[in-house]
Amino acid sequence: MILITNDDGFAATGIQELAKAVSHLGDVYVVAPDGGRSGVACAISSNTPVRYEPLTRLPSSPLIHWFACTGTPVDCVKLALERILPRHPDLILSGINHGDNASISVHYSGTMGAVLEGCMKGIPSIGVSLYLRRGEKYEDHAVPEATLGEIGKICEKVLQQGLPQGVCLNINIPQSDTFRGWRVCRQTHGQWTAEWLPDGERTFQLTGTFTDLEPDAPDTDFAALRAGYCSIVPVRIDMTAHEAIDHISKLIS
Amino acid sequence: MILITNDDGFAATGIQELAKAVSHLGDVYVVAPDGGRSGVACAISSNTPVRYEPLTRLPSSPLIHWFACTGTPVDCVKLALERILPRHPDLILSGINHGDNASISVHYSGTMGAVLEGCMKGIPSIGVSLYLRRGEKYEDHAVPEATLGEIGKICEKVLQQGLPQGVCLNINIPQSDTFRGWRVCRQTHGQWTAEWLPDGERTFQLTGTFTDLEPDAPDTDFAALRAGYCSIVPVRIDMTAHEAIDHISKLIS
Repeated sequence: MILITNDDGFAATGIQELAKAVSHLGDVYVVAPDGGRSGVACAISSNTPVRYEPLTRLPSSPLIHWFACTGTPVDCVKLALERILPRHPDLILSGINHGDNASISVHYSGTMGAVLEGCMKGIPSIGVSLYLRRGEKYEDHAVPEATLGEIGKICEKVLQQGLPQGVCLNINIPQSDTFRGWRVCRQTHGQWTAEWLPDGERTFQLTGTFTDLEPDAPDTDFAALRAGYCSIVPVRIDMTAHEAIDHISKLIS
Repeated sequence: MILITNDDGFAATGIQELAKAVSHLGDVYVVAPDGGRSGVACAISSNTPVRYEPLTRLPSSPLIHWFACTGTPVDCVKLALERILPRHPDLILSGINHGDNASISVHYSGTMGAVLEGCMKGIPSIGVSLYLRRGEKYEDHAVPEATLGEIGKICEKVLQQGLPQGVCLNINIPQSDTFRGWRVCRQTHGQWTAEWLPDGERTFQLTGTFTDLEPDAPDTDFAALRAGYCSIVPVRIDMTAHEAIDHISKLIS
């Protein structure tokens, strides 16, 4: 059994494609937000009740069960696991996100928030995102059938072999007419700048330009995307900088 | 210059105590949400304009400048850096949070969201949170003067020496009448369960019970808190599970 969610809402093209791409692997439950939740990271609804609703009018094979949820992507995972699914799923997927979640965007991403949540619950979890330039739509850049097929194969392998404890996967897909291959890589060291557009008195709209701060490094997720490869970054839920513990101990002493 | 934010809002007791505890170290700018933003993690306001407002009626020394912001804690940091502060601050603080952010709560925490954002911008950043039991208020458990003084000393050291690139600090304070000492430690491996209380038809309120899955480990943040020590976890913004890259490469091949 596979649980799928996203941060673009159940009606997004990306999640429908993802559900279709893995429906041959078993029962699929989609529990996704009832609208867009981009950039909500691991946010949870601490103070607002969360409601879910079964959906019956969606393009659906008998093996895909659709639910909409008023909460965040993390809420969707928590609610699915405890209150909606008949048993714990064998795999959690999130996406296909409309826009990449490479580099530090992993921190802001609602897509990856759901994946981290699945991982914290001990379930193999994978996020999938499509690289888009500003203003581009998902529908402008069809994900090649071959790429969808390869994502299905990765899911099959993870269903068979699992993932290391505390590790989930962050997959990003480049804009490409063909599937060129996978690259397992690390999170790019990058930065967002020029992030606010004036929008009235002391009022601003978030925007921003991303800069890859190590454009010559061959082993980053953005290097893979630029070369036309699909990137896979293994992501840890233990955020401890273990290698800094001694340094900080000396610093405070 | 020090920037302070939080996720409980500018009017919270914790942020006022933190501002006071470091005001002798230089100019302090508080740019904090205009109300509670608990559990919003690294969320950003992708689709809503964000507004800030200078505040003049708050308990304030001439060296503390207060601003309220309609956005999330991460928005507060982004907006402060680009649109409010006269220059980049030397230190970013977040807290004192009303409730701990130990173990995996680092992922959900708006307090730590702001800290991660500061770290992504290359500025030494520290989150401070007070352990509270469910239903307890911050005001029920005064943070000892000695502890506030020790937090000031840590901030002074970080102002002088900085922090390693890509590393920020997650400080949690136990309930205690005295300052017992610091322990630099790692994020506890734990889990939240029983997370949803029914609240109407297919409607639920988030709650949950935290379980420490390694209660006998001596080097975790919860072990430190249980022993009455203040915990410091160095936290990385590179979420890559570097040690899993080979394993994942084999898995997909």
